[in-house]
Amino acid sequence: MKKNAQYLAALRQLMKDHNVAACIVSGTDPHQSELPPAHWRGREWLTAFESENGTNGTAVVTADGAYCWTDSRYFIQATEQLKATGFTMMEEDGPNAVNLIEWVTSNFTTKDGEIAFNGSTFSHSWVEELKSVANEKNLICNPSLSLLEDVWDTRPSRPMNPLFVHDEDIVGETAESKIQRTLAAVQSEGADATFISALDDIAWITNLRTANDIAFSPIYVAFLYLDDNQRVLFIDEEKISPEVREHLNKYNIQTRPYESTGDFFKNQTSNLKVLVDPNKTSHRNYCEVGEARIINGGASVARLKGVKSEKAISHLATAMEKDGVALTRFMMMIEREYPTGTLTEIGLARALRQFRLDDPTCVDESFAPILGWNANGAIVHYEPSEECSLTIEGDGLLLIDSGGQYLYGTTDITRTIGLGNPTHEMKHDFTLVLKGHIALAKARYPKGTRGTQLDVLARQFLWEEGKAYYHGTGHGVGFFINVHEGPQAIRMNDVPVALEPGMITSNEPGLYYEGRYGIRIENLVVTTPWKQTEFGEFYEFKTMTLFPIDTTLIDMEIMTDDEIKWLNDYHAEVESRLTPLLNAEEASWLKAKCASISK
Amino acid sequence: MKKNAQYLAALRQLMKDHNVAACIVSGTDPHQSELPPAHWRGREWLTAFESENGTNGTAVVTADGAYCWTDSRYFIQATEQLKATGFTMMEEDGPNAVNLIEWVTSNFTTKDGEIAFNGSTFSHSWVEELKSVANEKNLICNPSLSLLEDVWDTRPSRPMNPLFVHDEDIVGETAESKIQRTLAAVQSEGADATFISALDDIAWITNLRTANDIAFSPIYVAFLYLDDNQRVLFIDEEKISPEVREHLNKYNIQTRPYESTGDFFKNQTSNLKVLVDPNKTSHRNYCEVGEARIINGGASVARLKGVKSEKAISHLATAMEKDGVALTRFMMMIEREYPTGTLTEIGLARALRQFRLDDPTCVDESFAPILGWNANGAIVHYEPSEECSLTIEGDGLLLIDSGGQYLYGTTDITRTIGLGNPTHEMKHDFTLVLKGHIALAKARYPKGTRGTQLDVLARQFLWEEGKAYYHGTGHGVGFFINVHEGPQAIRMNDVPVALEPGMITSNEPGLYYEGRYGIRIENLVVTTPWKQTEFGEFYEFKTMTLFPIDTTLIDMEIMTDDEIKWLNDYHAEVESRLTPLLNAEEASWLKAKCASISK
Repeated sequence: MKKNAQYLAALRQLMKDHNVAACIVSGTDPHQSELPPAHWRGREWLTAFESENGTNGTAVVTADGAYCWTDSRYFIQATEQLKATGFTMMEEDGPNAVNLIEWVTSNFTTKDGEIAFNGSTFSHSWVEELKSVANEKNLICNPSLSLLEDVWDTRPSRPMNPLFVHDEDIVGETAESKIQRTLAAVQSEGADATFISALDDIAWITNLRTANDIAFSPIYVAFLYLDDNQRVLFIDEEKISPEVREHLNKYNIQTRPYESTGDFFKNQTSNLKVLVDPNKTSHRNYCEVGEARIINGGASVARLKGVKSEKAISHLATAMEKDGVALTRFMMMIEREYPTGTLTEIGLARALRQFRLDDPTCVDESFAPILGWNANGAIVHYEPSEECSLTIEGDGLLLIDSGGQYLYGTTDITRTIGLGNPTHEMKHDFTLVLKGHIALAKARYPKGTRGTQLDVLARQFLWEEGKAYYHGTGHGVGFFINVHEGPQAIRMNDVPVALEPGMITSNEPGLYYEGRYGIRIENLVVTTPWKQTEFGEFYEFKTMTLFPIDTTLIDMEIMTDDEIKWLNDYHAEVESRLTPLLNAEEASWLKAKCASISK
Repeated sequence: MKKNAQYLAALRQLMKDHNVAACIVSGTDPHQSELPPAHWRGREWLTAFESENGTNGTAVVTADGAYCWTDSRYFIQATEQLKATGFTMMEEDGPNAVNLIEWVTSNFTTKDGEIAFNGSTFSHSWVEELKSVANEKNLICNPSLSLLEDVWDTRPSRPMNPLFVHDEDIVGETAESKIQRTLAAVQSEGADATFISALDDIAWITNLRTANDIAFSPIYVAFLYLDDNQRVLFIDEEKISPEVREHLNKYNIQTRPYESTGDFFKNQTSNLKVLVDPNKTSHRNYCEVGEARIINGGASVARLKGVKSEKAISHLATAMEKDGVALTRFMMMIEREYPTGTLTEIGLARALRQFRLDDPTCVDESFAPILGWNANGAIVHYEPSEECSLTIEGDGLLLIDSGGQYLYGTTDITRTIGLGNPTHEMKHDFTLVLKGHIALAKARYPKGTRGTQLDVLARQFLWEEGKAYYHGTGHGVGFFINVHEGPQAIRMNDVPVALEPGMITSNEPGLYYEGRYGIRIENLVVTTPWKQTEFGEFYEFKTMTLFPIDTTLIDMEIMTDDEIKWLNDYHAEVESRLTPLLNAEEASWLKAKCASISK
């Protein structure tokens, strides 16, 4: 057994002392961050299901059981890591999904005790849903009884890294302008103030960043309150340098202690109308603002950050060129050294990081590279580590999903390449994924179309053969903020947000055979106006990412002329944009990779 | 001006007397019927926007304006019919959509007066939405002040047609079994009783029908209450024949007067938990049941009717053969008589009705035929009438959307045929619509897929050229009940219902050029298990409708080999299934229409 058995025993003793039937442990923080700072990664500590990139999951501990829910990206990894921890994996999506709230409320009666959890790390809407189902069954929820912190003896402290200003010349918009647009959006939703918990929204509005609060994302830990008279950043004072104080003063943003949100709202007038997003705000903060004062909403605020300016998109094009150059050098190295049989996943991950950081405007990677050889490529969110890293030898597929945080924008790209002699089946599957990628990349659609409506375009060729991936096809991407950003998405479940010109999403269909190999092809695309017709206004995607797709893996038998044309056009653009930035040897390598293909 | 100006003047006088700023007039009845009985078609009477098939629309009358909201199927028709009535058409979907509730609540202040409407003809969820927006703006809603009935001097009475029993041998399931399954579904949603307003649900559960309460649908006007001890049908006694009384007694269903629902609930215990669907139940009935007793839901009950048994599907296959025979005879007549230049839309509509009713198991059409020549084909829900009927002459496209109510099931089919010399543009557009129809017909998809996810398959080829239709691609279809039935649908907006084996939907993409021509191709399809793979359980559609698609309208240049194969396979099945039911001349005609095509 791993040490987790001890943690579980300690937690269960506390549960018994407090008459708790089930203790639910959040995988996130008071800001509903996808990747929380170490201070809030207690669920990873408790379960040993963890990674540098964070792991989506919620744990439930009962008197005689322990469970960890996660989504299909992590099924293989979680099954492996949860071994000998006392925890059982539960599937939160896919054909065998079990709903956590239904499960928790169906497995106990009132006399077994309360359902305990930390209301500051679960969203208000989640808590409301839990409470509503629990009430029907007369179960008692206690959002103030966390218990985890009492057994987590090695808990790291809250991050205290200094902020810096994101050059407003690069951003193309002052914090003042963003605050004004945010307040206008707040008023359009019928409120006169807003309380924001989402760290990417706060970084976006304030044009402030930090290096290390959270790995791979330059956001910082704080809350933000805005109305026409007051602009308050709730933040630890240690994080404010004189330069940042000057920036804050310039925009009339005062600071208060991070934990003083409750006191602040006690002193506001009772007829204040505060816009709060119940999905992005913790239950505790929601109660602090005060239900009577709250207007639920925030879609119009989230939308502001989602729609990138033309200036931001032109900067991102520059970042994409830099990223393409780094990947060219990286892939040349792989091809050169693969025959020696000494390449390892972890070695490649480190080399890739260095190729990106060679560019002075690259501040960090945008996530730990997902770099999996054959079977490891089937672990959707696999990250190689010292303890676990395959040597790249023999024949097969290498999946590389990585990205950079450039001052000019955030990148995210996946390529799957063949090494040695990949099988015909691998090539056939690669081509099905590619056909889906192309169908989505080429899509044209009327104004008002949501990502959900387009999602099947990427999946159709797989479904036709009874194959499927269950993760999303596309997520929003921030501008030197989070690599995963809302509100728009291209997913199977409906996300009620229309794709608008300026929104960036990924296009990343895949296919995964547990224990054998994985395939994913990912570019970032931006929604762009196409044309106005008598039937309305139409948009299309413009692909931003610049790096060749491995044409040696294509099964030409199942490619249509239109698909071949798309690929040749794409490769022509990659070649023409990257070549001026490469030396002669690199340019010659790229030229070969971008060579036109035909039947 | 039409007479509607007088009605408006009378209504406005009453509004003034009662201090009403806006009077909202429903287009439906206390059962939220798509096609209400004449007794509840006051909105059609008031606005003159009307048709045999019913028209979707809600009217709003103010002191100095009058408006009628409708959806894109009716834009052309409503614009025409509303001329000189004092009403202005408002678009409820598409790129220029205006939200009725937002409009009503933004155009008045408290001092202008109340917002009045008849709470018995609007769904509870709609009223709740209106009230919530109105409350924010301090506007007063009065759901008990209808006013319309006070000016509607020619209002028809409630329908009093006798019921009959739908042969339970054909249905394949007794009312007892359906009641038991319904109560199990009710309990699965946490309730111990249910109050049902939807007439198709009531007809389905009771295995009872009537001929003329509502044109084109054998459903009858009633409410149904079910719990473990009581089964109550609220219905006018005149409708109950001795045979029907025997059927009701057999299943312990008692009857009470139609209007006694309020009294009934006053006498039930207060701790009753009643499952009510707030979208299908009127605000008034909802209040009668009593909010404190209500559990909102009903999805699991609606699902029961949506999933057809194998027996029902095999019966529907028989109905499809009968329908194909009627259409064969009808289309042969068109081809024979078109050269004479004497065919008219209304004449064809009558002839088509007769061809269907020639079969003794065909009880009625399932809706008034939509039969439009060229420009009239662009009116999505056009019906020819005495006053308005084109002669079929010259070159172009004839759109025919029709269906039958057979004891063996309900049919719904659209064909667009070329007469004379259709233009290349018409053929190109027809082929784009056909490609979408085929893409959807061929779709395979994992368990859990919703219609919304597949919708784009039917639209993609149109969008690619900046063309679009804005109606749904597929609606559910009842079994000798309504031709439009929930819960599943294939639409742009998300309908959170997975397609399940046994669910029948239409597949009907189209394209409409106002003033020029319209195209639609519609078959009914049933979701069917395909196969189980390591990636989950997969389904596919099986096309049920049997009638050739006009191959003379196909632009072969843009058809793929796979699409041609689908069409040839489909035509081979049509020919083999219908030929045994036809005489030699008919069989020979069909053989030519079903001839294999190739590039």
